[in-house]
Amino acid sequence: MNKEDHPIFQQRLKNAETRVVKIVFPNTTNHYDTLFGGTALQWMDEVASITSIRFSRQQTVTVSLDQINFKQPIPSGSFVELVAQVKEVGRTSMKIQVDVYLERMDRDGRERAISGVFTFVAINEEKQPIPIAWDRPLDTDTSLA
Amino acid sequence: MNKEDHPIFQQRLKNAETRVVKIVFPNTTNHYDTLFGGTALQWMDEVASITSIRFSRQQTVTVSLDQINFKQPIPSGSFVELVAQVKEVGRTSMKIQVDVYLERMDRDGRERAISGVFTFVAINEEKQPIPIAWDRPLDTDTSLA
Amino acid sequence: MNKEDHPIFQQRLKNAETRVVKIVFPNTTNHYDTLFGGTALQWMDEVASITSIRFSRQQTVTVSLDQINFKQPIPSGSFVELVAQVKEVGRTSMKIQVDVYLERMDRDGRERAISGVFTFVAINEEKQPIPIAWDRPLDTDTSLA
Amino acid sequence: MNKEDHPIFQQRLKNAETRVVKIVFPNTTNHYDTLFGGTALQWMDEVASITSIRFSRQQTVTVSLDQINFKQPIPSGSFVELVAQVKEVGRTSMKIQVDVYLERMDRDGRERAISGVFTFVAINEEKQPIPIAWDRPLDTDTSLA
Amino acid sequence: MNKEDHPIFQQRLKNAETRVVKIVFPNTTNHYDTLFGGTALQWMDEVASITSIRFSRQQTVTVSLDQINFKQPIPSGSFVELVAQVKEVGRTSMKIQVDVYLERMDRDGRERAISGVFTFVAINEEKQPIPIAWDRPLDTDTSLA
Amino acid sequence: MNKEDHPIFQQRLKNAETRVVKIVFPNTTNHYDTLFGGTALQWMDEVASITSIRFSRQQTVTVSLDQINFKQPIPSGSFVELVAQVKEVGRTSMKIQVDVYLERMDRDGRERAISGVFTFVAINEEKQPIPIAWDRPLDTDTSLA
Repeated sequence: MNKEDHPIFQQRLKNAETRVVKIVFPNTTNHYDTLFGGTALQWMDEVASITSIRFSRQQTVTVSLDQINFKQPIPSGSFVELVAQVKEVGRTSMKIQVDVYLERMDRDGRERAISGVFTFVAINEEKQPIPIAWDRPLDTDTSLA
Repeated sequence: MNKEDHPIFQQRLKNAETRVVKIVFPNTTNHYDTLFGGTALQWMDEVASITSIRFSRQQTVTVSLDQINFKQPIPSGSFVELVAQVKEVGRTSMKIQVDVYLERMDRDGRERAISGVFTFVAINEEKQPIPIAWDRPLDTDTSLA
Repeated sequence: MNKEDHPIFQQRLKNAETRVVKIVFPNTTNHYDTLFGGTALQWMDEVASITSIRFSRQQTVTVSLDQINFKQPIPSGSFVELVAQVKEVGRTSMKIQVDVYLERMDRDGRERAISGVFTFVAINEEKQPIPIAWDRPLDTDTSLA
Repeated sequence: MNKEDHPIFQQRLKNAETRVVKIVFPNTTNHYDTLFGGTALQWMDEVASITSIRFSRQQTVTVSLDQINFKQPIPSGSFVELVAQVKEVGRTSMKIQVDVYLERMDRDGRERAISGVFTFVAINEEKQPIPIAWDRPLDTDTSLA
Repeated sequence: MNKEDHPIFQQRLKNAETRVVKIVFPNTTNHYDTLFGGTALQWMDEVASITSIRFSRQQTVTVSLDQINFKQPIPSGSFVELVAQVKEVGRTSMKIQVDVYLERMDRDGRERAISGVFTFVAINEEKQPIPIAWDRPLDTDTSLA
Repeated sequence: MNKEDHPIFQQRLKNAETRVVKIVFPNTTNHYDTLFGGTALQWMDEVASITSIRFSRQQTVTVSLDQINFKQPIPSGSFVELVAQVKEVGRTSMKIQVDVYLERMDRDGRERAISGVFTFVAINEEKQPIPIAWDRPLDTDTSLA
């Protein structure tokens, strides 16, 4: 059985998915009133970081991110929803997919504006990489939360 | 038919639900390292505000909040997940229920730590209350987002 | 003699009153340029917290707040003055009254815009409620400060 | 009659006095856990700025500050109270005295830790200095606020 | 002559180099007291953005960043110096190299900790890409600044 | 030989020079859209502080600043570059010169807008002044960094 098919892995995958909605305020935008690329990157890393900790229940650090394209400007006064999911689990590392959806305040519907993949490793107190303990049984029944 | 049973109302209700996960950093905590009540209130109002706008696609302002009890301290180094849902829709106002769940970084599972009800009204550009336009058809098919 | 009439109680009451003036900047306002309800709540809790500590000289935490109504919008570019006072002292808890006054930059005079009552308890290092030590003599003569 | 003795001047002087209490949080302190000098300066300028606007009800800008000595370190976990008062009024400028008092959380009493004098000028929309309109009658009876 | 050899290009290249030193405070670090990857990314994008504007004197937006590796943790209480330089200029885009040097407070010397390449495009008021106007003569003699 | 002519002193002087470029965002400006004096002071103190630590590799605190004049308004949407240099070294104190240059986004060239002198002392863990250890050999060859 692949680890991806293991029920604990499946349960961890489901628990780790993280959603965060933000309002794009003028103080996070440049002089054309669109969100700074760097602010988007910080938000994406934060949500990805939460996802990696929720999956492993271990301390993690960002070790790399893949190339990212900013397809469209995100105007001040929009909502963005960040959705982060575990995409791949190695021995000590996790790849986290982050999608950023743009949603206007005054219209229903939304579209994907940015996507990226961040890699995290689990570390111990000496900041050395340690194996992802994905097969540890869950601490509590979290299926009802 | 009650408005609550109307398919557009149902769809808006579903679209409006908003989730935000936050990390409780030391700079949002007091000297016993627990989250300030005021910071929790600000987070709750922000998520409730997004929910009220997503439901109505109108500009809204907070007009009141009901009594709130802080049942348990929220320690630095935790996650909190805020979940906001439309609870009741009047002519010009919406009651938004916000639940705050506390989740330790190093353990699966979570528990509800704070609950509150915020009331918002929809306003026009003169900042006067206007009817909630819940029965306007959705701008786009949002069922797949 | 009621504790409210005790000279130490009276002196503590006077010392605990706290005033804070804030400028309402655009980055604390929504898209109609009025202060977010949540920001007002955070400011109110902070001033109330200082008042509760100044009265008791003990560590305190917010345990509840009563219903609050936001009577009028607070526009960007105003001053607000927050005034917090001890309203009632129980065995382990203090009720703190907070009034928020709105003052335009370009006109004399001001009016009350928001009022609320926050309840704090004094806690020890185990975060357990402890009696408010209001009858401890003051550490120094503070009448001249 | 000196302008300082004029009843309108006296009333403006009284209305302009501004008090702000702050908690010294770890994120405003250096690695020895004492408040940054620059943070104290920013707070002092902000309170002085409010005082100058409240006195004149005109827009003002900082044009200079006199030498400032930081007599004692301000530790994390203290309160500071900033008190700003109009000290001297020229044709287009106002000198504002700012005193910063240090107050421990767990002890009554306080002491003066920093003092400074900031000079502001009133300006028009072209950012040119204009006379301080101190003898304009007050907009409303503010004696009861 | 390659544009890279043109004296105006050379002068712009020199003027555009931007250096920013930051203190790594506890409120920008995770629970192992090392700088968040996302915070580093935000700082890198901001410095790169300044460099792209200084080179072109046009408005610019981030369109992509190449893969980035975080080679070593950056502990709280360090300095980091960000150095951004124009690396390559296309018709409408500029590649900006950003190097992040880690410097301990209590020791001389430093080492490179992170490197990245950000791509910016110059845009007009309709947010459409426009040619980089690198061959426009400089507005003033900037060689002495 | 004067200490100023000592090669270690010279090398420390060169290493200590610190440059920081900032974008003047609307959330750091007043209602006429010019930078607050207090924000400029905070930035100046921070850069001066880094310079004093880089020179001495000791912990330092601000003890005073000389009179400062704000010659010209700094509009929102500008760059400012802060340049801090060690100006004078006493037994336990260092005078740091900070110059603030104003640079428009859309034009080459810049001009000096603010200058100030901040005095720092080196302190030990008991927060007592200690001699500036400028003649300690550098920890590493830093000439190539």
